[in-house]
Formats: sequence, C-alpha cells, structure tokens
Amino acid sequence: MTTIYNFSAGPAVLPKPVLLRAQAEMLDWHGSGMSVMEMSHRGQEFTGILEKTEADLRTLLSIPTNYKVLFLQGGAITENAMIPLNLLGGKTADYAITGGWSKRSVDDARAYGTINIVASTETDGYKHVPDYAGWKLNKDAAYLHICTNETMSGVEFAGEHDLELPQTNVPIVADMSSQILSRTIDVSKYGVIYAGAQKNIGPAGLCIVIVRDDLLGRANAQTPAVFNWKTQADNQSMINTPPTYSIYIAGLVFEWLIALGGVPAIEKINIAKANLLYDYIDSSDFYVNHVAIKNRSRMNIPFYLRDESHNEAFLKSANDAGLLQLKGHRAVGGMRASIYNAMPIEGVQALVNYMQKFASNH
Amino acid sequence: MTTIYNFSAGPAVLPKPVLLRAQAEMLDWHGSGMSVMEMSHRGQEFTGILEKTEADLRTLLSIPTNYKVLFLQGGAITENAMIPLNLLGGKTADYAITGGWSKRSVDDARAYGTINIVASTETDGYKHVPDYAGWKLNKDAAYLHICTNETMSGVEFAGEHDLELPQTNVPIVADMSSQILSRTIDVSKYGVIYAGAQKNIGPAGLCIVIVRDDLLGRANAQTPAVFNWKTQADNQSMINTPPTYSIYIAGLVFEWLIALGGVPAIEKINIAKANLLYDYIDSSDFYVNHVAIKNRSRMNIPFYLRDESHNEAFLKSANDAGLLQLKGHRAVGGMRASIYNAMPIEGVQALVNYMQKFASNH
Repeated sequence: MTTIYNFSAGPAVLPKPVLLRAQAEMLDWHGSGMSVMEMSHRGQEFTGILEKTEADLRTLLSIPTNYKVLFLQGGAITENAMIPLNLLGGKTADYAITGGWSKRSVDDARAYGTINIVASTETDGYKHVPDYAGWKLNKDAAYLHICTNETMSGVEFAGEHDLELPQTNVPIVADMSSQILSRTIDVSKYGVIYAGAQKNIGPAGLCIVIVRDDLLGRANAQTPAVFNWKTQADNQSMINTPPTYSIYIAGLVFEWLIALGGVPAIEKINIAKANLLYDYIDSSDFYVNHVAIKNRSRMNIPFYLRDESHNEAFLKSANDAGLLQLKGHRAVGGMRASIYNAMPIEGVQALVNYMQKFASNH
Repeated sequence: MTTIYNFSAGPAVLPKPVLLRAQAEMLDWHGSGMSVMEMSHRGQEFTGILEKTEADLRTLLSIPTNYKVLFLQGGAITENAMIPLNLLGGKTADYAITGGWSKRSVDDARAYGTINIVASTETDGYKHVPDYAGWKLNKDAAYLHICTNETMSGVEFAGEHDLELPQTNVPIVADMSSQILSRTIDVSKYGVIYAGAQKNIGPAGLCIVIVRDDLLGRANAQTPAVFNWKTQADNQSMINTPPTYSIYIAGLVFEWLIALGGVPAIEKINIAKANLLYDYIDSSDFYVNHVAIKNRSRMNIPFYLRDESHNEAFLKSANDAGLLQLKGHRAVGGMRASIYNAMPIEGVQALVNYMQKFASNH
C-alpha cells in the first residue's frame, strides 16, 4: 500500500485506527454475524450503536441536556433548506456572508422567506470576518445564520479559547461542517449547530444537527415529516431509515477522539499543525496566504504560488510524492491543504518539506 | 463467526462477496492509498466509480438513453416529497394505496398539492392490488404514483414476465425500493422509478431515481437546488456531496449481479426462493399468508402463526438458530421473511426447516 497524505476538503481523510476497526468488523459486528450495513435500524444492535454514538458526541462537545442531537440523511446543503423550513415561522432571517458556503446558504434559504444580509465580504474575496460592530442585525429576525469556518477560502471566526460571536438576542444558527470537533466551543451560545459528516465526523451522507429544545416545533406546515426536526427529535432520528453505516463510522471516530483525550487534546494538535504550515508559508517568498491572521482557519489552509505558472507542476509532483488533493476549490483557485482532525502532524510536515523542496527547485 | 441468515426488511443482507471486497479495499482502493470514504467526490477515483456504477445499473435494467439516473442523498421517504416538488407543476396527482408505503407516500405528498386516491385497499388490510378497471384515474393528473412492491404487507403488482400496469396516459411514478433488480421490468413504461438503496442495492443513505428526460425541468420554483432533479441531472448528482461510500457499495452489488448473469438470472433464483417458502406455508396448518396469490411478493413474505400465542417463542428460538429479524412490521404484526437478492436459497431452506420443526414441536 502506498503511503499517502490526503488533503481533500471533504470527503476527507479518516483516522487509520477507525478504518482498521471498520475493516475488522465488516462482516461480523461484535459476534452478531452481520455487517453494520445489514442491520435493521430498529434492531437492538443498531439502536445500541446510535445511542452510544450520541452519548459520545454529547461527551465530546459537552452538549447541554436542553439540546437534541439529530442524525439525519444528507449533508449541510440539505440542512440549508431545512433551517428556514424549521425556523422562519413567517419572520425574516439574518445571514452573514463570509465565504462561498455561507453565500450558498443564503441561496438555499431565499425560496422560503426574506433573508437579510447583515454583513458580507464577497467584494473583498473572503479574506476576513468583518467587525461585528458593522453588522446590521435585526432584533426581530427568526435567527442569525453564520458559517464559523469557510472551507473554500479558509476563513474562521476569531477566538483563541472559544469562538468570538456577534452579540445578538436571536438564536445563532451555525454551519460548522468543517470545524466541528476541531476545537472547544460553548454549545449553549448557539440555537442550532449543524455539520455535514464528511470532514471531521465520517462518510458523506450524514448531517448532524444539534438544536435547542425551544426551537423545535416551529416548522412550516408544508415541512414533510422527514425534514421536520421536531418529528425527528421525537422519533430518535428514525422517522425514516437513517444513514446507519455513516453513523457507525461516526461513532468509531468519536471513540477514537475520546481515547485521544477529547476535543481539548485534538485542538492542541490542530494548533500545532496549522502553525507549522502557516509559519512556513509566512516565512516563504514563494507561497502566500491572503486571509487576515486572526481569521485564519486551522482546518483549511488555502495558499497560492506567487508565480502561478508553476501550479500544474506543483500539483503533479505533489501527487507523485503521495500528497493528494491539494488543488484549491475551483471557485478560488490556487492550492488548499485541508488538515482535519484525522490528518497527522507527519502529513503536514511532509507537505512543508515538499513545499520547501519545490520552492528551492523553482 | 456465527453463521446467520438475516431476514431484515431493510437495511438488509448484502452479498458476502461484496462485503469481502469492501473489507479488502477498506484502507486502500485499487492502490490509491485511500479508502473510498476518504475520496473527494470530484476526484478522478470517485468519478470513475460513479460512472461505472451508473453504467452497470443501465446494463442491468436496460435503461433507455432518454432516462437520467440520479444518485441522491436520502431514501424513498425523502423522494416522496421530491416527487410532487419536481412534477406537480400546479396540477393534481393520482395515487394508488396498496399498502403502508404507498399510504405514506400520499401523506408526504399532500403538503404540495391536491392528491387524488384512485384506488385503495386500506380497509381490506392490504391483501391485493385492486383490479385496474375500478381505478378512478384522471387524465389531467401530473402523474400516477404506485408502489409496485409493498414491503410491510408483502403485496406486489401482478405479472409473470413483466409487471402488469394500469393503462394510463400520464407518467407512472413507481416506488420500487423493495423490488428493484429482483425481476426484469420495462423501464420505458415508467416516467420515474425510485428506490431507497437499503434493500436490493446497498447501504441506507442513497436513493436512486431513474427519470425520463421530458419530466425534468418542471420543478416548483421553491425547490432547493439539491432537491431539483434537473439541477442534479445537469450536475451528475453532484450539486451537493453525494453519499459516496453507499454508491461504491451499490457498484459492488451491481458487479456481483452482472457476474451472476444479471436480472434474469437472479429473477429465476428469486422465484425459486419465494416458491419454496410459499409452498411450505400453503402446505401447513400452522402458518398462513393472507395475500392474494397473484399479488404475493417475491421479496417480502409476511406470514402468521395461526395460534399467535406462540409468536414470542417462534422468534426467540429462530434467533437462537441464527434466523434473524423475522418479526413482522409493527403496523401489521406476525412474521415477515424478506428474501432480497442477497439472501441465498440456503437461507430460505433453513427457515423452512426451522418452521417445520417449530410447527411439529408446538
């Protein structure tokens, strides 16, 4: 087997111990004689897996008891439509645009009601999160939507110990797809946190929604049962068949993370990984990152070759060296290293070594 | 490892060669150094998997070129809502109720427009598909919705060589979740065929939609891009991240089926399996199946113990004998053996042997 490091933005690298365990259990989960893929979602084996997975996530994020955790089909884009369906209730909603994904969230929400853009960095090319003093917040909005880490442009909300959030009296709804479990957060500051699984959680096809109790039951009458958070919460996410195998892998990832020391432990590693790469980029004349330092993402690190005529050669020899998926999102170009929880620091070091060598050769 | 036979209605048994191959490839797909779960959905490795999977499905079902094949997040219940969103266009729709799932489809569609029930067997407890002569079809309906095999009650549309369908000038939309790939069908007779994966295709979290070209582009303006079939068709099902690992497993299942001789070959086996179980039930005074003979499902075979006081003992010793998930759906009670493509005839024989023994002991 080739030793590679996979910098894909998602679906993304998974912890090797998780894959080894999934491999070992593929045909026979815990002596059941069944693969997890083959289990009825209502059988005791799978309901046990689901309960353990939820309990471990609650432990990892210290989720308060007045929050429900939903394990839903789809990803963050599906939930982009579910949010207004479940929360608007005839009101308007506030959205901040700090990158391509929060802009997409606005596009997906507009069909359901009036969306106010309270701040946007689109014209500056998404290089920072604007000062909260300038946000045009509406006190009567149903909610304020933010994306706390923008995967494409590598812009993260600032905060050394906890994310700094805008002051508002309305519930904050946060897309944390590419940030969840990478750093400690205070869940009680949010109304809703949602995350597609395929970055820090598990395989694509699962979206986790953490929602405060009092926000359930506000769904538009046209909301199909499968998309109604209250119906799903009342039925342990089983008003339909949930994505059982993705939930199982998520559970293995959570166990791996707990064994490692939980979110505070991985956060330290993530800071070290991000510093390693940013420090090298900043020290180099060959590469550049354009994001404001306080908003630099720890998970997704976009960078550009100052001479972009070398882009193709950079990607090709990176691939040959086993450093995969470094091409930036087609919307922004350049390069991007996504260094999620499962990326070991050795992978980041290998990337820095490669970047140094490439720079000195060109 | 315990040898078991898993009669779950879904998620359900998968072919053992498929699980063995998934196990072997778990950490390194074809020398890529990556698990399929870790691959970018836009990378050449995964797009190759998706293209091969679609091509193999087209081969297996002889899908005409004027049909698109979509690989979407979710399951049939998600699509229940997508169907009216994508097809109603201000018209009404006709629905036939022949079991719990087609009834559920009606419930999920009502929020979007006027639904006409053209036939229903609800009051008779879903024991047959009513004579088409009595269906109150509307020639101006946007479509006619049917569920060609009802998983809960084991009622299948009649037809020895091909399913017999009602005569209508409007597009037929068929939920084939628990029937697809189990028998030959003529795709050109349908406007839309859809199927949740977790019965005859692969893991839960994937829904396959086969849709005729001329039905694309009719979506309600409020349809989010992710749920708009035309947008998905124009973007190779990648307007969002598709459920990549479920698609990969589906691809392995399709390869297994092609190697076996395709749908005609598995259909012969399925007929033999169903006959084995129905013949035994019919020959017995201890068990009974209530479905009209011409509408008996080949995939889901519900049966009752004439003396239901033995139900618990039947299930417990079946479990002890490695015959799992035989409890009927909670809505209908009794027992149910789901014998999808991946259930070998040895499993059905083992069940019949067990039923004989249990009957003679009680």
